[in-house]
Amino acid sequence: MPRGSNLPAVAGFNETVVLDQIRRSDDGVSRVELVALTGLSPQTISNVTRKLLQRGLINETGKVVGGPGAPRMMLQLNPVGGFAIGVHIDPVVITCVLLDLEGNLVAHSHLRAPSIAIEDPEEGIAAIAAAVDQLIAGTAVPRDRVIGLGVAVPGPVDAVRGRVVKPPLMLPWSEFPLRESLEAATGLPTLMIKDVTAAAVAEQWMNAENPSRNFVFFYYGTGVGVGMVLNDEVHNGASGNAGNAGHFRIAPDGPMCSCGRRGCFSQAVRPARLVDQAQQLGLLDATAATDLHSVFGLFERLVASAETGEPQARQLLVASVEAVGSFIVNVTNLLDVDRIVFGGPYWSTVEKFFQRELPERIRFSEIDNLSHSVNVASSVIGEDVVAVGAACLVLAGSFSPQSSKLQIAPAVIKVGV
Amino acid sequence: MPRGSNLPAVAGFNETVVLDQIRRSDDGVSRVELVALTGLSPQTISNVTRKLLQRGLINETGKVVGGPGAPRMMLQLNPVGGFAIGVHIDPVVITCVLLDLEGNLVAHSHLRAPSIAIEDPEEGIAAIAAAVDQLIAGTAVPRDRVIGLGVAVPGPVDAVRGRVVKPPLMLPWSEFPLRESLEAATGLPTLMIKDVTAAAVAEQWMNAENPSRNFVFFYYGTGVGVGMVLNDEVHNGASGNAGNAGHFRIAPDGPMCSCGRRGCFSQAVRPARLVDQAQQLGLLDATAATDLHSVFGLFERLVASAETGEPQARQLLVASVEAVGSFIVNVTNLLDVDRIVFGGPYWSTVEKFFQRELPERIRFSEIDNLSHSVNVASSVIGEDVVAVGAACLVLAGSFSPQSSKLQIAPAVIKVGV
Repeated sequence: MPRGSNLPAVAGFNETVVLDQIRRSDDGVSRVELVALTGLSPQTISNVTRKLLQRGLINETGKVVGGPGAPRMMLQLNPVGGFAIGVHIDPVVITCVLLDLEGNLVAHSHLRAPSIAIEDPEEGIAAIAAAVDQLIAGTAVPRDRVIGLGVAVPGPVDAVRGRVVKPPLMLPWSEFPLRESLEAATGLPTLMIKDVTAAAVAEQWMNAENPSRNFVFFYYGTGVGVGMVLNDEVHNGASGNAGNAGHFRIAPDGPMCSCGRRGCFSQAVRPARLVDQAQQLGLLDATAATDLHSVFGLFERLVASAETGEPQARQLLVASVEAVGSFIVNVTNLLDVDRIVFGGPYWSTVEKFFQRELPERIRFSEIDNLSHSVNVASSVIGEDVVAVGAACLVLAGSFSPQSSKLQIAPAVIKVGV
Repeated sequence: MPRGSNLPAVAGFNETVVLDQIRRSDDGVSRVELVALTGLSPQTISNVTRKLLQRGLINETGKVVGGPGAPRMMLQLNPVGGFAIGVHIDPVVITCVLLDLEGNLVAHSHLRAPSIAIEDPEEGIAAIAAAVDQLIAGTAVPRDRVIGLGVAVPGPVDAVRGRVVKPPLMLPWSEFPLRESLEAATGLPTLMIKDVTAAAVAEQWMNAENPSRNFVFFYYGTGVGVGMVLNDEVHNGASGNAGNAGHFRIAPDGPMCSCGRRGCFSQAVRPARLVDQAQQLGLLDATAATDLHSVFGLFERLVASAETGEPQARQLLVASVEAVGSFIVNVTNLLDVDRIVFGGPYWSTVEKFFQRELPERIRFSEIDNLSHSVNVASSVIGEDVVAVGAACLVLAGSFSPQSSKLQIAPAVIKVGV
């Protein structure tokens, strides 16, 4: 139910608007320019910028600009005014990143997920907290400048309670109080988000040069999934679980999937499944271990074999490109997005192959409801994309203008205290 | 780029917030209750309600409520304070509706689309303008109380220019200046929207009893498509063309579609296609005309035949139910919606059959990223749903709080005037 707005709500909103404009300026921006950019009065800009300077979030660069009118002092974001931690919990690797206020990657670490961390959530949380401590200790960042921690996890998630619910490859974590345990172990305010959605947050936040208001992030990892930004808003869905693409049914008579249905998209594109098929065809050593850690190397060999033109390897990969192309046409038609971004841990392995084979398989026709082109690109962020997105969630929550915040918060009524 | 907020922007927003709260109250609401509901101060509520009374948008009901504190005067929406016209242009029928401020259907008319209206847009616009005139003249509504007109059209749309671009069944309308011609012919400010998206607007606006913040409207008409409300916002897409489901590829080796691809969803569910198959199987008279007008009756006979248990007719329809079930699982997994609403001109024909056969074919499994149930229902609005949605778009634009409106509008700079 929408609520009203008043001056305190507006003041907080205007601070984020000004901060966001300063963040987006490469070479700083003057107060006069901020008046033009935001529509706010010179007096309001003067008040807001004074507060932001006091809180250490922006700097006066000392650079004075000439031109018509009085000389103007330029303002820039103070990148070391605040920091955010991002953690990506994945069955294969746990990634931690530390971003500054500008979104620059200050430090990162990768913890090849030890079985203990996957089998015992308590141990997992302790390992992550230790990794976060090391990350902060290894830099000159004062801990009290770290605003918060974002943690990205495989779905299904229970966003309200901050938990995962029966994630196929991390079953021991099901219903474990993940968010609150991590908050307690690190002492940092903690937000939770689904992994593929975090990837979309990262792309939205970091790719200022080529923004799109409606795009899909195609995440190519142990499984496949999509993150969505629709009308400039990250789409989480009713329960925070949007983006499940792996069980998109693409062929009613396709192979049986572990979900009990036939013809799921993941059967056509999941690296472990392609490796399995390659082993059956004798393209890869059938006796090689295919645990989550080993699949990566085997998949690289399969792709390398396809690249050299080995017909069966090529055929396997082309079939997955066909499926991805078809999926992209479907999703573009449904959502009317104008950009598809690819990324995730397995993307760099197949990137060249896809770049060569995919465009001709994204077949739009006149009947598709599109009056614009669709841009297909690789993510500007590399393998850390999900962890970066989780950290950006913290930055976005703290600093990015969200007009819903303009509304007066409902009073919290405590009962029986 | 987000812009700032200030007092005039807030005042306009607060008016819509108060009006929306009054609209949502069945039996009226007092100023004291409005303070609690909106978070606004008593003084602000007093000022805002005075303005709304002056403009004739709300009434004091005279009903005074007791209880603790002073007696309170109840406020209600004045349903005849304003009206909106909705027009649905469809190749088969042109529907016009007149709604009052509460969204009540005051009057409607159906113009069995004459070929002239489809073949000659100029004639079509004249016919629509005449129908709108008759609709208003047939009621006691003063024309100056009609706020505006919403027009819903088949895609593809060019939302910026207010046109359709090569709509398969209305080719003569391609690139015709639809919105501005209709605005000129009726003298009413005109908004344009894609038909399936209008259906979702109608459901969002009218179904106050069972609201969902994330739902899909499955539109079963000459073609199929979906309207989407995601996170409480109607999703239009980058170009206003979201919701194209007909060319969702559901079977890579399926029958060839008019779009040049194989296995499109519409091939499995489009009434004309099912009628065609039934004719080939000898279930329907193979010599019967299958123009857009005739398909309806033939389709009704096919469904009636399936209802009586004729095996081949049943098999045809069950296959389409299978396809719809699979599509719904796909879309729910992708978007994490918690409600699917069915409607559109062909829905009432198949409603009973689907209600019996569909639930067991919407097969979610544990691996689906859902931590909630999915409600499947028929639309609360009947055959006029798209026209009603187009009219609701006018009401929503004028009266519904949209926090994006809180931001100061950029100044319009006229060049060379």
